[in-house]
Amino acid sequence: MKNIPPLILEPLVRMALAEDLGRGGDITSDNVIPATARAHVVMASRQEGIIAGLDAAETAFKLVDPLLTVKRLVPEGAEVKAGDEIMEVAGCARSILAAERVALNFVGRLSGIATLTHKMVTAVGNHKAKICSTRKTTPGLRALEKYAVKIGGGMNHRLGLDDAVLIKDNHIAIAGGVTVALRRAKEGIGHMVKIEIEVDTLAQLQEALEEGTDAVMLDNMSLEDMATAVKMTAGRAIVEASGGVTLERIPKIAATGVDMISSGALTHSAPNFDVGLDYKAAA
Amino acid sequence: MKNIPPLILEPLVRMALAEDLGRGGDITSDNVIPATARAHVVMASRQEGIIAGLDAAETAFKLVDPLLTVKRLVPEGAEVKAGDEIMEVAGCARSILAAERVALNFVGRLSGIATLTHKMVTAVGNHKAKICSTRKTTPGLRALEKYAVKIGGGMNHRLGLDDAVLIKDNHIAIAGGVTVALRRAKEGIGHMVKIEIEVDTLAQLQEALEEGTDAVMLDNMSLEDMATAVKMTAGRAIVEASGGVTLERIPKIAATGVDMISSGALTHSAPNFDVGLDYKAAA
Amino acid sequence: MKNIPPLILEPLVRMALAEDLGRGGDITSDNVIPATARAHVVMASRQEGIIAGLDAAETAFKLVDPLLTVKRLVPEGAEVKAGDEIMEVAGCARSILAAERVALNFVGRLSGIATLTHKMVTAVGNHKAKICSTRKTTPGLRALEKYAVKIGGGMNHRLGLDDAVLIKDNHIAIAGGVTVALRRAKEGIGHMVKIEIEVDTLAQLQEALEEGTDAVMLDNMSLEDMATAVKMTAGRAIVEASGGVTLERIPKIAATGVDMISSGALTHSAPNFDVGLDYKAAA
Amino acid sequence: MKNIPPLILEPLVRMALAEDLGRGGDITSDNVIPATARAHVVMASRQEGIIAGLDAAETAFKLVDPLLTVKRLVPEGAEVKAGDEIMEVAGCARSILAAERVALNFVGRLSGIATLTHKMVTAVGNHKAKICSTRKTTPGLRALEKYAVKIGGGMNHRLGLDDAVLIKDNHIAIAGGVTVALRRAKEGIGHMVKIEIEVDTLAQLQEALEEGTDAVMLDNMSLEDMATAVKMTAGRAIVEASGGVTLERIPKIAATGVDMISSGALTHSAPNFDVGLDYKAAA
Amino acid sequence: MKNIPPLILEPLVRMALAEDLGRGGDITSDNVIPATARAHVVMASRQEGIIAGLDAAETAFKLVDPLLTVKRLVPEGAEVKAGDEIMEVAGCARSILAAERVALNFVGRLSGIATLTHKMVTAVGNHKAKICSTRKTTPGLRALEKYAVKIGGGMNHRLGLDDAVLIKDNHIAIAGGVTVALRRAKEGIGHMVKIEIEVDTLAQLQEALEEGTDAVMLDNMSLEDMATAVKMTAGRAIVEASGGVTLERIPKIAATGVDMISSGALTHSAPNFDVGLDYKAAA
Amino acid sequence: MKNIPPLILEPLVRMALAEDLGRGGDITSDNVIPATARAHVVMASRQEGIIAGLDAAETAFKLVDPLLTVKRLVPEGAEVKAGDEIMEVAGCARSILAAERVALNFVGRLSGIATLTHKMVTAVGNHKAKICSTRKTTPGLRALEKYAVKIGGGMNHRLGLDDAVLIKDNHIAIAGGVTVALRRAKEGIGHMVKIEIEVDTLAQLQEALEEGTDAVMLDNMSLEDMATAVKMTAGRAIVEASGGVTLERIPKIAATGVDMISSGALTHSAPNFDVGLDYKAAA
Repeated sequence: MKNIPPLILEPLVRMALAEDLGRGGDITSDNVIPATARAHVVMASRQEGIIAGLDAAETAFKLVDPLLTVKRLVPEGAEVKAGDEIMEVAGCARSILAAERVALNFVGRLSGIATLTHKMVTAVGNHKAKICSTRKTTPGLRALEKYAVKIGGGMNHRLGLDDAVLIKDNHIAIAGGVTVALRRAKEGIGHMVKIEIEVDTLAQLQEALEEGTDAVMLDNMSLEDMATAVKMTAGRAIVEASGGVTLERIPKIAATGVDMISSGALTHSAPNFDVGLDYKAAA
Repeated sequence: MKNIPPLILEPLVRMALAEDLGRGGDITSDNVIPATARAHVVMASRQEGIIAGLDAAETAFKLVDPLLTVKRLVPEGAEVKAGDEIMEVAGCARSILAAERVALNFVGRLSGIATLTHKMVTAVGNHKAKICSTRKTTPGLRALEKYAVKIGGGMNHRLGLDDAVLIKDNHIAIAGGVTVALRRAKEGIGHMVKIEIEVDTLAQLQEALEEGTDAVMLDNMSLEDMATAVKMTAGRAIVEASGGVTLERIPKIAATGVDMISSGALTHSAPNFDVGLDYKAAA
Repeated sequence: MKNIPPLILEPLVRMALAEDLGRGGDITSDNVIPATARAHVVMASRQEGIIAGLDAAETAFKLVDPLLTVKRLVPEGAEVKAGDEIMEVAGCARSILAAERVALNFVGRLSGIATLTHKMVTAVGNHKAKICSTRKTTPGLRALEKYAVKIGGGMNHRLGLDDAVLIKDNHIAIAGGVTVALRRAKEGIGHMVKIEIEVDTLAQLQEALEEGTDAVMLDNMSLEDMATAVKMTAGRAIVEASGGVTLERIPKIAATGVDMISSGALTHSAPNFDVGLDYKAAA
Repeated sequence: MKNIPPLILEPLVRMALAEDLGRGGDITSDNVIPATARAHVVMASRQEGIIAGLDAAETAFKLVDPLLTVKRLVPEGAEVKAGDEIMEVAGCARSILAAERVALNFVGRLSGIATLTHKMVTAVGNHKAKICSTRKTTPGLRALEKYAVKIGGGMNHRLGLDDAVLIKDNHIAIAGGVTVALRRAKEGIGHMVKIEIEVDTLAQLQEALEEGTDAVMLDNMSLEDMATAVKMTAGRAIVEASGGVTLERIPKIAATGVDMISSGALTHSAPNFDVGLDYKAAA
Repeated sequence: MKNIPPLILEPLVRMALAEDLGRGGDITSDNVIPATARAHVVMASRQEGIIAGLDAAETAFKLVDPLLTVKRLVPEGAEVKAGDEIMEVAGCARSILAAERVALNFVGRLSGIATLTHKMVTAVGNHKAKICSTRKTTPGLRALEKYAVKIGGGMNHRLGLDDAVLIKDNHIAIAGGVTVALRRAKEGIGHMVKIEIEVDTLAQLQEALEEGTDAVMLDNMSLEDMATAVKMTAGRAIVEASGGVTLERIPKIAATGVDMISSGALTHSAPNFDVGLDYKAAA
Repeated sequence: MKNIPPLILEPLVRMALAEDLGRGGDITSDNVIPATARAHVVMASRQEGIIAGLDAAETAFKLVDPLLTVKRLVPEGAEVKAGDEIMEVAGCARSILAAERVALNFVGRLSGIATLTHKMVTAVGNHKAKICSTRKTTPGLRALEKYAVKIGGGMNHRLGLDDAVLIKDNHIAIAGGVTVALRRAKEGIGHMVKIEIEVDTLAQLQEALEEGTDAVMLDNMSLEDMATAVKMTAGRAIVEASGGVTLERIPKIAATGVDMISSGALTHSAPNFDVGLDYKAAA
């Protein structure tokens, strides 16, 4: 998705704010800061990378107080460096401080994912391979994390268990082999669903190609086997490399000619992007 | 919290499963594997660390299919090494495969946090300092992530904005100083609420100690200043070190004599713990 | 999907029961029937067709009273005739009567869809065409209605806006033509997403085939044009017929050689299946 | 109800949109149509009948994008013919296309119910009988479907199990007869609740009238028996005809002098009203 | 309603427990009491009155820990005196203490309402008047509070705005008089809905009786006027007395011959019933 | 909390309105009053006391109809007498009447609590004791009721089980004594959590003071023992009096020198504040 529909985003921000406000609201600001105090703050980057999640941050501020004014200083997806100003917020000081942490938590997480994705995409260089995410996402945040991958220049794999078929090692073992698994999948699914199968060996790949499949996932293969697999496939299926994907190894994987390189770390282990809120003046 | 109350845990697991099953369920397993196939699988660690989230994993399997049998092979909080078996699941193969990813996502995330916490706690060595988490948690998962910190041997700071007062730099700036901020907080809050104030300088610390506070947070201070701050405080308040907390720097911070060392990275940047599901046999 | 995961089904049945019980529960049964009265009832078909929704009915009875015993007399998907007994329920009379209408409403709707689907599938005869549903489903019930189509022997198209690309007339008009629309779609989507495009003319079909697409939807074409379209396509894409699909016209459409015949009426206008609850005896 | 309170309507539209947008939003429009493209579309009727559900359609468009402008070209409840324009929508093309199907699904279903109701009401002619709906409604949509019946000129029976007493055959059987059932109901209920009893025979009717009841439901009686029942009742209770109600038979049923004619088909089997969205121009 | 359907009750208890457990659970019990400690406690009355809410209490204990054993020592609706034992709970000590307050809060509130209702019913003596509640209930708890009124021997008025018509002074003023208001109501509503009208004077009563109504509410009338109103009505409508209803005045109001005496205080101002949990022994 | 965050308040008002509107909306107003009628009403106090809940009332009116104009005539927390006008509402008559009861129910309950709190605070006179609430709140409304206590001039104790430690008699019994219970609590909790312990005797108090605690709760002690306890404590802990707190006894309790006086009745038994809506004119 190119943007996060408010209908998907708003309930998540609402949940995060409710989680933080608890049963008593922001007792620090409510007691320490006068109700009439106004503030002007700027969200600023503390590192370099790709910014994602500005919609979430703005939603957080607006849900706490619709009278806050929010101005974006860079567009979603912008490449920033440490010190760059991202968003300006002005209005009731208590409201700004009550929403601050939730706004930053969303931007920190989503920009972290976008930034790591961007690094992996860059590591691919001139090869054709695309970087793509997996279902190893944070419970409840899949739509947002998949979106952040797109902002970082990556692609997405399945969104869930129901929108594409991915036959994995356990499926093959239980079904009784590559051919029977693929055949059953093709018989059972609709015409708008793609099928991919995980193969651990070139023999399995051969079997899959003979039966026919939309895509194959090479699981933890050596670089040599990957290159061979690409040749064997010869365009008959999309070839995805999976397992052991690190920034260092991506150029070599990409050089084998695979179409896709998928990484769980993109969503489950991207370090938080460092971003903060600086007080400028009474608004 | 020492365990996650089912009332808090279950809705989160339900949300994660609904997110993954979508509108069509697990179309791969439903088409590839016979309804009557049974399987016996084992969740195994692929790295060393501390296991957390077994309740979540078990809940995921049971919510998908109450007839699955789940057996824990290590207790929650166990220290494991790569290859250790964690949990055994047996029953309908389709059910196991439909719940697998959600179960692993919870265990991966929570064990990742527990493992990083444990490393930080270990880094403290014989010093008295305790490691504690912040509000920089994943939207929606605060209760679970705070729990994982406890499992890893850490402590928790505020759970949200409403259970303790933490006066930060922006509060001080807007309120007009350390003394007035502390005074207002003490006047306004109930007798069961603690107050902490962030100080950037030893002068601010002095002012806070004179006015009186339950705790002080030393924000990004040098090791020298931290040591001085501990002496100045002389037990009149809990001293918390914050900012620039890395595994490498923890022993030195702890050596200054602070009571608490807090880290946002514990919850926002802990790398996922590597755990997988191995197929053993038809159950 | 081959069955409805309880996680998807239960909230829908719960919503339907809450809607019916309101703020006061079943005041008729509560006042007219003694709390200790027990009953034995049988759900029976009043027409011929295909039964779907037994899981929903059982869930309704069990959610109202876990002590009710429910026994299925035919399997899900069974072909029944008027008078056939489908399900037996015994236990507290008040509980049975409180759940009755909700149970019947689900079975009536889903069996209605399964039955109409089955008729359309039968009308195809020996041709290869498959009957498939659309997104013209009842708000909130898409997963269930898509499931009922499967039970009736049909296939499903997209589950929603996010799991496949379907470029329709308005998209083409706004994008500026078939070629540009298809090209953008192929550039933007992931490798696990299929693309279909609606064509109104054979010229558009030709353009689509040249650009390449997974599937084409022939919108309201004459039988002659459909036949020509099938020949032109020559297996390069799945061919779906859409518009003006009636039981009478299906054999002729199927005879053109199309792969799929899609019908909104399957889900939005299937007449309710007539089913009732007969009192047998005090349980 | 004469209109649908937004508090009841909005969550249902939100649920329908969430169901359609899934985890990825409208991937077709997002990829095929530029973010800046604007469109002007008109919702137009493809058949004759009564329009209901314009609030739902407008809510769908506005929830997806509050900046869309929506103009109604006919009022709710209008009698339209094929080709009549109903509603005009202008603004961001992606937003319009993302909301289109949900808006049409609501209008199609509710107008279908209003149209069938209107036909039945018309079939009554100059007789006094009123057409009324039952609890055979779509799970989750009862309030909306009951509303559509009103728009079509019909009346509503109970909204649920808790707002009126309807003693049916099974209640009578379990309670031990018409008299005892009615007596218990009158003793137990409050003074603002009406009581109706289903009677299969004139003997049961006589028993009910002797005991006293607000209304009687003649279940599947012959036209002759209905006429006799009306005379026997002589205004002492409202007389409702139920069972075997078709458009063809309504004039004859109405001619027997009954007060109400109730039909489950109104809500469970009304064919969808055919309505579409026509692209006019870039807005 | 004679009992609270679990589908209505459980979400309310779940909400109350979630509210109390917050993000951290019962930190007192979790830290102070060993995980293995078992306890045996008894819920005991500290005053005399009518017990209501045992289902809610049992649900609270079971939702926190399904392994707790709960035994009722008196039935719902029992008349108890101070010191009577009500319910026995045994099992994990931490679980019992975590659920205690929520269980007691429900029993305290519902028994308070039942007890006050019982006192008012008793005050009526041998007169025919029934005590009934209003819509002045606690937000979110209407179904439960209406149920408690029934347990105390009272009756219920409307459950909400949609199940009966009650024309009040403001409606009359805006509509333009008693007659026009009643006439419109009768034209608009269905045959299963009752109509009541509030009258402030005997002249209004006369007008209402001439137009015809199911019930009249005498608003804040003197005892003399009430007696006159009863005679004027002469059984043509149910007569309800409202306003200034106190335990002391009920016998006199009842003596005027009214059918119903309604009281908002029943639900909005019933003092909490005093009930506690006594520790007996390690279970 | 000094105000109720909209994120906490709105869902509660929405729940209350949905509960009242049911499945059919306000059928009285919808049938009796023309859609175009406008009204101007004033919410007026019928007694003296402290007003709380104006945000809730305004939210109720606005959620039903965003076009209503609402003007506050007194600020939240105002001290009013019978007859004082509180809030003016103007706009569509149907909308005002549909929201009336919910708006009044919130203001009645919250002002009732604020008024009782104010009376207790006044009863303390010049003593230093503060009045504080407990966890004996209405299920679902804790945040609002705790807020009303603040508006009335009181303080709050724990918001739930997770934000502070309160070791009660049962904890002490099961843990094996005051000292061990306190010690375990101090070891287990974080540095931002306070600890209080309930003591029944001066001996227990002595034990608690020796071990150290933030606060002690004197449970049902005589006035003499309370005075002694205050002296024994000598400022080493906050002293809270609990049990047998009535308006009459508060001055004597306060005179013993305790710091806090807590009362469950504040939230569970405060009589509703009498407030009504007066019709002024067609708006």
